[in-house]
Amino acid sequence: MAFSNISIKLVRTIPAGSPTLKDFKVEAVDTPSESSLKPNEVLIRSLYFSCDPYFRGRLSGTKDSYVTSFIPGNPLEGRGIGIVEASTSPKFSKGDMITSAAFKWENYFISSDAQLTNIPSNTGISPGNHLGVLGMPSFTAYVGLVHLCKAQAGETILVSAASGAVGQMVVQLAKTRGLRVIGAAGSDDKVEFVKSLGADVVFNYKTCGNLGDTVKKAAPQGIDIYFDNVGGELLDVALSSMRFFGRIAACGMISQYNATPETAYHIKNLGNVVTKKVTIYGYIVSDYFAKPVYKDFIDEVSARFKKGDIQYKLDEVVGIENAPQALLDLFEGKNFGKRVVKVGGVI
Amino acid sequence: MAFSNISIKLVRTIPAGSPTLKDFKVEAVDTPSESSLKPNEVLIRSLYFSCDPYFRGRLSGTKDSYVTSFIPGNPLEGRGIGIVEASTSPKFSKGDMITSAAFKWENYFISSDAQLTNIPSNTGISPGNHLGVLGMPSFTAYVGLVHLCKAQAGETILVSAASGAVGQMVVQLAKTRGLRVIGAAGSDDKVEFVKSLGADVVFNYKTCGNLGDTVKKAAPQGIDIYFDNVGGELLDVALSSMRFFGRIAACGMISQYNATPETAYHIKNLGNVVTKKVTIYGYIVSDYFAKPVYKDFIDEVSARFKKGDIQYKLDEVVGIENAPQALLDLFEGKNFGKRVVKVGGVI
Repeated sequence: MAFSNISIKLVRTIPAGSPTLKDFKVEAVDTPSESSLKPNEVLIRSLYFSCDPYFRGRLSGTKDSYVTSFIPGNPLEGRGIGIVEASTSPKFSKGDMITSAAFKWENYFISSDAQLTNIPSNTGISPGNHLGVLGMPSFTAYVGLVHLCKAQAGETILVSAASGAVGQMVVQLAKTRGLRVIGAAGSDDKVEFVKSLGADVVFNYKTCGNLGDTVKKAAPQGIDIYFDNVGGELLDVALSSMRFFGRIAACGMISQYNATPETAYHIKNLGNVVTKKVTIYGYIVSDYFAKPVYKDFIDEVSARFKKGDIQYKLDEVVGIENAPQALLDLFEGKNFGKRVVKVGGVI
Repeated sequence: MAFSNISIKLVRTIPAGSPTLKDFKVEAVDTPSESSLKPNEVLIRSLYFSCDPYFRGRLSGTKDSYVTSFIPGNPLEGRGIGIVEASTSPKFSKGDMITSAAFKWENYFISSDAQLTNIPSNTGISPGNHLGVLGMPSFTAYVGLVHLCKAQAGETILVSAASGAVGQMVVQLAKTRGLRVIGAAGSDDKVEFVKSLGADVVFNYKTCGNLGDTVKKAAPQGIDIYFDNVGGELLDVALSSMRFFGRIAACGMISQYNATPETAYHIKNLGNVVTKKVTIYGYIVSDYFAKPVYKDFIDEVSARFKKGDIQYKLDEVVGIENAPQALLDLFEGKNFGKRVVKVGGVI
């Protein structure tokens, strides 16, 4: 354990507004030693951290959400992938690849074995892609599209943030199921990428002009499913474009996470849920890992990915010291694909 | 057919804002004669018209809704109860009691038999109560509470317009299922009525002061189900009060039906559907009459009503000439219970 250890810590909670680099501290800390392990503990070397929009809620200090808030002075934590360096647990051995949803943002840390899951080494899926194509955002796509909205061939779907971690999977799963797919993305590069995934119409929501007109032109008959990552104006436009018996999968509202009471977008068209008989499914994917739909997802997506008929764009930021910026970028839509931090060292 | 005939006609469509008496015409028209019946037609004497919030949409001239708009110069129509005066249909005989969803607002009118349904005369339910306790609004309550939201004993429900046609049934069905019931109503008389139905807490939303504080005090732990008839601010407050896995039955937004772009309420708390994993069910009850849930409703509610353990408040306006005012009152919350027009004549 001669390697040095960096910890990414929260400086203060940020109830509203945009976090900045000053809200995080990149701190050199002691590397935990093998001899300090208590029974059933594991010393982990970090390979990848997952950066996800839901982190915004954990920065806010609120106690009123589905995830616990980060505590100032403590390291951030989230989904990650690592290698077992030492273990006093009968379930894990040195060299095993593991994942955890309580993965600390440090090069080395000690975890109880109860929070860890082994990743088989023979899957043919790279470590980063366990956070990517088989990761939480992909599963979010699957739950919303397949399990909740029950997408049917011939329907029309609008996908927000269509190049993002969730959106790119929604686009591809929808196309393989015979839907007409309309994607919204935030740069011309992203638009091209989403087209390359097979979407029928893709627009740059920042430059397309009037959003309502753009959606109406893309879907003159309206939309059956809206897959919502972003909330705000595009959600409002989607509400006004829903067809009878439309469904909305609402798994995030990133456009509003940094909003203050002054800048928050207010929804005008919610009345359409009645007149168009729309169901809005708000959901958090963590409720579905223990359900049969998780196995369906792993089976379908890993087979398709290995065959090459699903693509997945990872957006890797290299170096633990860059983790705070990697996260801030995400809140501003500067990522392109599923953002992960490649921690460093030998993988 | 010596009786005279009055027709309630629409003068103009009203896309936004509040309709007035001038938008309707009370016109004397010829009484249709038995000899003018074509094959499979029925001459009907009207007993009751149902006044319902969804009429507001039909006054708007829109083609983009789940019901057809009324046409200026034509009589209004909706759900009604009447008696067969003459028939060329093998399915209906003089003296039968019938209902129809395309019941014209006239003392006498001719209908094709395809639009009529017989009401058995031995049900023990009065004619008006076929529009009331067994009518469309009651079924709306049943579908939302039982079929969609799957109310469970021990949960807390907030019911808007709790003294209204839908709300009073929601309150009672929820109580019999073991829920804690919080009702909102628009006058002190209505509050007392809702309490008499068994609701645990009832408040007057017009005089309670801050709505958010009022709901928080009534339900410190939050609400599991919000039954929404009204939309607007109370919906927004409910969204901010939802517990994890909450459900919202959205069957109407009457507070917004007469809103103009300037007066419409904009929703601020829709983000809670994600963080609290809420499902919003927008629905229209007419989609459910052909489903098994309709028989469940008739069986349960007619049995309970006859036993006396469900009450139902009909708000009868007498005289076809008063039908326009009866409808306008509804849009302003001046009804108290399920509003019907008792047409007149011998019942």
